[in-house]
Amino acid sequence: MGKFMDVHHGMQGITADQLKEAHRRDLAIEAEEGVHFEQAWADPNSGTVYCLSDAPSADAVKRVHAQAGHPVTEVHEVSLTVS
Amino acid sequence: MGKFMDVHHGMQGITADQLKEAHRRDLAIEAEEGVHFEQAWADPNSGTVYCLSDAPSADAVKRVHAQAGHPVTEVHEVSLTVS
Repeated sequence: MGKFMDVHHGMQGITADQLKEAHRRDLAIEAEEGVHFEQAWADPNSGTVYCLSDAPSADAVKRVHAQAGHPVTEVHEVSLTVS
Repeated sequence: MGKFMDVHHGMQGITADQLKEAHRRDLAIEAEEGVHFEQAWADPNSGTVYCLSDAPSADAVKRVHAQAGHPVTEVHEVSLTVS
């Protein structure tokens, strides 16, 4: 398992409800792939959404997002964290 | 105040110690700009680093990072969050 940051583009105008619903759809199916989406942050102006997850692989992250209806191509394994 | 995600590129090979030190340098001066860097995640393979902060503006985030020695051009205000 690792930690992954994926990035969606082109989501200009996304609302709080839409982000919540997209996250809910991920959570509903993520267990099939052994993924857990922890947090997501959206910038409605630039249309950028960042999702942080624990997952077995970048491909698993991509499969969940694709099945949930919001496919993503940009997924980075963020093996280092500070806080 | 808002929440911001900024993205650094070209940091291939960054180590845990280097990430920690870069974060420490931000924390040391962030108060001057009213910024607080909460978390950072790094992918040493692609050289990408994501930083999450609370800040009065994207420009304030840029000024802290620049003064700390790791300037950034990509800063998004992430006004929506889910977890």
